[in-house]
Amino acid sequence: MATHTHSTAAILSIGDELTLGQKLDTNAQWLSSQLSNRGVVPRVHITLADGLEDLTERIKDLAKTHDLVVMTGGLGPTADDLTRLALANAMGNELVEDAEALAALIARFERAGRTMAEANKVQALRPVNAQCLPNPMGTAPGLHATIGSSDVYCLPGPPRENRPMFENHLLPKLRPERLVLTRVLPTVGVGESTVADLLGDLMSRDRNPLVGTTASSSVVSVRMRYEGSDETEGQRLLDETEAEVRRIIGEHVFANQDQSLAKTVVELMIEQDKTLATVESCTGGMIGQEITDIPGSSAAYVGGFVTYTNQMKIEQVGVSQHSLNEHGAVSREVCLEMALGGQERSGADYSVSVTGIAGPGGGTEEKPVGTVWIGLVGPDGKEDVRRFMFAGDRSLIRSRSATMALAMLWGMLAGKPRIELFWESAD
Amino acid sequence: MATHTHSTAAILSIGDELTLGQKLDTNAQWLSSQLSNRGVVPRVHITLADGLEDLTERIKDLAKTHDLVVMTGGLGPTADDLTRLALANAMGNELVEDAEALAALIARFERAGRTMAEANKVQALRPVNAQCLPNPMGTAPGLHATIGSSDVYCLPGPPRENRPMFENHLLPKLRPERLVLTRVLPTVGVGESTVADLLGDLMSRDRNPLVGTTASSSVVSVRMRYEGSDETEGQRLLDETEAEVRRIIGEHVFANQDQSLAKTVVELMIEQDKTLATVESCTGGMIGQEITDIPGSSAAYVGGFVTYTNQMKIEQVGVSQHSLNEHGAVSREVCLEMALGGQERSGADYSVSVTGIAGPGGGTEEKPVGTVWIGLVGPDGKEDVRRFMFAGDRSLIRSRSATMALAMLWGMLAGKPRIELFWESAD
Repeated sequence: MATHTHSTAAILSIGDELTLGQKLDTNAQWLSSQLSNRGVVPRVHITLADGLEDLTERIKDLAKTHDLVVMTGGLGPTADDLTRLALANAMGNELVEDAEALAALIARFERAGRTMAEANKVQALRPVNAQCLPNPMGTAPGLHATIGSSDVYCLPGPPRENRPMFENHLLPKLRPERLVLTRVLPTVGVGESTVADLLGDLMSRDRNPLVGTTASSSVVSVRMRYEGSDETEGQRLLDETEAEVRRIIGEHVFANQDQSLAKTVVELMIEQDKTLATVESCTGGMIGQEITDIPGSSAAYVGGFVTYTNQMKIEQVGVSQHSLNEHGAVSREVCLEMALGGQERSGADYSVSVTGIAGPGGGTEEKPVGTVWIGLVGPDGKEDVRRFMFAGDRSLIRSRSATMALAMLWGMLAGKPRIELFWESAD
Repeated sequence: MATHTHSTAAILSIGDELTLGQKLDTNAQWLSSQLSNRGVVPRVHITLADGLEDLTERIKDLAKTHDLVVMTGGLGPTADDLTRLALANAMGNELVEDAEALAALIARFERAGRTMAEANKVQALRPVNAQCLPNPMGTAPGLHATIGSSDVYCLPGPPRENRPMFENHLLPKLRPERLVLTRVLPTVGVGESTVADLLGDLMSRDRNPLVGTTASSSVVSVRMRYEGSDETEGQRLLDETEAEVRRIIGEHVFANQDQSLAKTVVELMIEQDKTLATVESCTGGMIGQEITDIPGSSAAYVGGFVTYTNQMKIEQVGVSQHSLNEHGAVSREVCLEMALGGQERSGADYSVSVTGIAGPGGGTEEKPVGTVWIGLVGPDGKEDVRRFMFAGDRSLIRSRSATMALAMLWGMLAGKPRIELFWESAD
């Protein structure tokens, strides 16, 4: 292990499927955000095809100019997985079989009740002077080596393996040169450009802490970043900045840290000892899926109904044929009946319903694609039913619908039942 | 304009927000897939921070080694938008104001009823020997230049500007050196390393057509790629390769092209005029969500039940208290009762059920985390109930459960009801 600090980093992603555009690389971004949030600045991302010579040269080159090189991919069992060999060549090493890694690999296959394919054996190879990094999530161990004064890590490509490997093996060994402190306030219900407008000068590029926004699935996160050397001073400046951000947009902040809206909703339900049911039409199960993605959600979520057809709406949650005839499946009346029926039949305290036109077909002049009704009923007869007009394609309309349903639920649980939500549209 | 053909390409993405991991770059992948499917091979993606010297050197370097360099980003009006200047430096040119580009910029602001900020004027600058490319979707024109024998294009970063600019300005000027023909056969039920073992020499790196695999959500896709000059010969070689792949692993191929398993299932259901209901416990709505992601799925999918609690299993789909007491919620008996109850109550032809332990809590010695039962019932009393033992975390166990449920459904619909599936585990 090199003993100096890590000031700069390079990310090297490997695979024809990446350079040819068959697959989107999300590791480079994730790793970069992890590093830069801890004060190690990624200066470059490079993505290379599976080619031994080019890869070898690039590893040598990056190790000369960066304190830390993080490689991802190319650790699989096939002939085009060249990371092990390229690292060995860059180090001037031979490859040897790592006894521990091989034993772990064999044990892994045994536990799964399968015979290990002969091809998998190559995954236990490492350059003589490199170290294997155990990978409990997959067959490919990672690798760590030093080349000159640079730390070089090879992590597996699949994000489910890549991320825990980074957290378990690289993070504890990270020695940032400078202090970086970050905070995140996730918001819902306001568009990203509106947030930027509201924050104004707070987002100036030469400010410290620096304030920025990122948007994902209709959640806009306000990110604050202090760079310096004084922890106390940094926390004080972040306190001031956070207070300022909250003064401007605090009404829409749903958590004190980077977490999903579904997690906040589940936490509030458990805190208040309440239960939830879902009744989904155009989202087809997406809200239930997002909620049950949270470990422990069974303490609050009883389940629900996917009422995709009118018949399911009638039979499973008691929507009336009359409302369907008079107002159509995408209407305030049907949406409210769905929520009420779900509440009654499941016995849950809260029930949220979604019915809309996700497209590409099914739109009319009166109810164009993107028209979505979301209904919410709670204890003591509480009701909230809203119409949204979403832009975008089927996938975006569905994911925005799910987020807005969770946002309405968060509003009712957090005691702000009439919170304004972007894309909401007067009836 | 250089007059030779385009054989290789490099993609150069520019911006601190990319290298720091604040934003995911999707342009590099999109551009690469466009180029590689037309026979121009992207060899490298590079992402750089906003720094003039580094950027200038990299442009020179890439132009020496690639026929085509596509840059994205850094064309905005602020001080850290350095693409124009870096290109000028790399060309040894001065920057000059482009009269046409300036006029277009002024007209754009006028149309929007806004006054142009002085800062925006820099967006009409270009290197003397470069050409501005009109951008109807935004304020930043693109740029085209030649450096040595390389064509260099600068396109704006936002995808909704980047993509039309590529299609309008770059695509018509593309002169691929070679012909590329591709085919994809997606498979399910076999692990990626087993597929590689089975395909063996077919995956040799010097073969033409080249055969490779990619894996995503438990689907392993076999990709074939012919590079050459003769369309007839290419199709003949692809036919041969495809026949060979099908001979080896055809049993698991679920489509003739790159498409999701859910799409295949929906297509088969519509073809056979059958309907489907889902009864989900640990997947919480994920199967319904994946099916309804397919436009037109309403012709086959009636909806279903998320029976997360035992009470919901009893009340909504008629699971017996006796089975729950005797065998537990995660058992063959309850799984089958869920599927049968969902079929009966929804009136659908097919009904698929999932009940399992996704973790991290809830595992026992007898039923560890990862134990998942999947049940499927169809017309004429057809039944298929299987136990799976999945490795991985909550999210992976859930997504693999959903994929295996769809795989069983595909098996029954495609007339291979006992197809072997990876992770399946004898009772």
